[in-house]
Amino acid sequence: MAFSACGVVTITTDFGHQGPFVATMKGQMLGRFADAKIIDVTHEVPVYWPAEAGFWLSRAYPYFPVGSVHVAVVDPGVGTKRDIIAVEADGHGFLAPDNGLLAPVIGRAKSAQIYRLDLQAARNRFHLPAPSATFHGRDIFAPIAAELAAGRASLADLGPVLKEIVPAWVDEPAVTGDQVSGVIITMDHFGNLITNIDARLIERFAHPVVRTSGHSFPLRRTYGDVRPGQYLALINSFGVVEIARAEQSAAEGLGLGRGAPVVVANQGHPLIT
Amino acid sequence: MAFSACGVVTITTDFGHQGPFVATMKGQMLGRFADAKIIDVTHEVPVYWPAEAGFWLSRAYPYFPVGSVHVAVVDPGVGTKRDIIAVEADGHGFLAPDNGLLAPVIGRAKSAQIYRLDLQAARNRFHLPAPSATFHGRDIFAPIAAELAAGRASLADLGPVLKEIVPAWVDEPAVTGDQVSGVIITMDHFGNLITNIDARLIERFAHPVVRTSGHSFPLRRTYGDVRPGQYLALINSFGVVEIARAEQSAAEGLGLGRGAPVVVANQGHPLIT
Amino acid sequence: MAFSACGVVTITTDFGHQGPFVATMKGQMLGRFADAKIIDVTHEVPVYWPAEAGFWLSRAYPYFPVGSVHVAVVDPGVGTKRDIIAVEADGHGFLAPDNGLLAPVIGRAKSAQIYRLDLQAARNRFHLPAPSATFHGRDIFAPIAAELAAGRASLADLGPVLKEIVPAWVDEPAVTGDQVSGVIITMDHFGNLITNIDARLIERFAHPVVRTSGHSFPLRRTYGDVRPGQYLALINSFGVVEIARAEQSAAEGLGLGRGAPVVVANQGHPLIT
Repeated sequence: MAFSACGVVTITTDFGHQGPFVATMKGQMLGRFADAKIIDVTHEVPVYWPAEAGFWLSRAYPYFPVGSVHVAVVDPGVGTKRDIIAVEADGHGFLAPDNGLLAPVIGRAKSAQIYRLDLQAARNRFHLPAPSATFHGRDIFAPIAAELAAGRASLADLGPVLKEIVPAWVDEPAVTGDQVSGVIITMDHFGNLITNIDARLIERFAHPVVRTSGHSFPLRRTYGDVRPGQYLALINSFGVVEIARAEQSAAEGLGLGRGAPVVVANQGHPLIT
Repeated sequence: MAFSACGVVTITTDFGHQGPFVATMKGQMLGRFADAKIIDVTHEVPVYWPAEAGFWLSRAYPYFPVGSVHVAVVDPGVGTKRDIIAVEADGHGFLAPDNGLLAPVIGRAKSAQIYRLDLQAARNRFHLPAPSATFHGRDIFAPIAAELAAGRASLADLGPVLKEIVPAWVDEPAVTGDQVSGVIITMDHFGNLITNIDARLIERFAHPVVRTSGHSFPLRRTYGDVRPGQYLALINSFGVVEIARAEQSAAEGLGLGRGAPVVVANQGHPLIT
Repeated sequence: MAFSACGVVTITTDFGHQGPFVATMKGQMLGRFADAKIIDVTHEVPVYWPAEAGFWLSRAYPYFPVGSVHVAVVDPGVGTKRDIIAVEADGHGFLAPDNGLLAPVIGRAKSAQIYRLDLQAARNRFHLPAPSATFHGRDIFAPIAAELAAGRASLADLGPVLKEIVPAWVDEPAVTGDQVSGVIITMDHFGNLITNIDARLIERFAHPVVRTSGHSFPLRRTYGDVRPGQYLALINSFGVVEIARAEQSAAEGLGLGRGAPVVVANQGHPLIT
């Protein structure tokens, strides 16, 4: 599916909500494309951690209209020689530093084309002033995203095709005969522990059980299937395995967080639950 | 006043700002109604606590344009048999789980009509894919809100009239001869302690005094009426009794929070203040 | 450059994200001007601290389209006799309490005209209901900003020209022969320590070195110019001196925060770095 701009731009960063950082990105977008519809995905990615931005973006983009432009700025290398890449995937456009952030998007898309931003050409074409050394989100990503969202440029216009990018920070889950090994990749506001294990990896398991740190949880359908305070595992709304605690925080209760290993194994017989 | 869509949708949740939860709701809305004007009311309702979402929504909706659609998702029962209700009140539309959240809205509106969402009919009519078990905000509430906001459906279209709903989690204040007993229902970012006691309940009091946890505060007009650091009570901008401390946090200073009982009594004689 | 409305309104407050405070401001704006494009600058200004709102606004407004209306509400004196001022500066419009908040904007603009809001006249002209005593952001600032953004009023319409305003809370940096003395005025989400020392004040220094609390940092170009964990100083993307620590928090590492004195001195000879 080719990218055809729908006017939506999403922003994912590790900027938090202090100061005018995200706001000035939006100001730059509206200055070039007054009708841009801008959506904040999240600005609470752990600082300097592109992997989490990539995880969420790769699972979330299908819920935005086709033709959306997704800007992701988790960019500890800002102002150094690191490249910026533009990706066209499943009819969506993406802009991010070439630091592994977009690897999960590219790896999961049905089709993806990657371009390396030719910054000098873009500066000339879009009349960008000299960028600051520390805030490319505002000075480069935002104006280019606006041009894309306005339909005045295509992703292929931005530079040469790129064959290889910086790889992902977190390995995809390892799949062996009767088990899948992944990690807790993020947590939500409720303390649910979200893994990078996709449902399709375990759908062949007749009786999947989710294990982490000596605990073992059967797979249920939703939080309300157990009593408040009880733990459970489920396939969450973004299609990955999640460990939760009904009406409480699994993260606090188990003392677990990002990076903890999680295994989903197939039991030979139904669990008694 | 009948609901006639103005294109505004508001969102109230307990999702916080981590992850793409609210964002994907907005993505689903814009996919159906590209001109939706979406306003975040707050996403910092205490988790699993519908009462606070209902309190704020019931006091805030009159400040949005008539014809707004208000989506409120504080939904520990997501994916279970709990119903979803649609409410038409004073020209506004509301969508929420039937878990008591909307009781304060319905109780205070001049007129309110309640409908039980017929989910199967809505899925057929609006071509909704099968919803996830854990995120109805994105999969059910958002698309239906967009259809309402676009003027392509009425609240009455959504299902049969409902006579009874799950009641409110917090009792309305008790009114006796010379006093009104309520609770601290929420706090703001400044540490102001906000009660559920409406001004109209105490307007007949010649000399109201506000009491909580052994403290007693006269009613003033605004924060600047006392010196920084001093406590006061006032009728706040949403028409309820509030206990505050000028330029400081009353919550921290008094060690009080949600649920603390508050009494407003009528003094026989003016307070010396 | 005269103000000509472009439809953009920005909001800067110390309200945080709890409750419907910012949201009801937006509701009031959309009720008057349905096409308003509203951008949150930040709502995490330290409570009751107009200086930080003014610092950020004075550095950020040039990144919004000319013709934007900037509303800033950090307003401990709400409901008292304090005035509200409207400022036209470099083609932008500003509304804020007259409490020193806008002094940095006015001091740095190429041209600025200040007006004192005639509240009674505005209430008549714009049909404003009686404002609450504690939330002028919603009851006065928001509707007037919407009228300005809609192009239905000019800043000069709002009241008489004002010659003097409440001065800034934080002094501009002191400049002597070979050094400039300022303060840490704010921090960002990464723990970067941001000073109020503008680059132009030190550009004549051949070998600037940044000193604070017994530490001394050379000026670099960007974070990636040093190894993770190392400290540096730089001119940040808003044109002021910043003390940072690559991929870590300088604020935590140094134990410094708002108000700490910072000196930039000119070394007679290049630093060995």
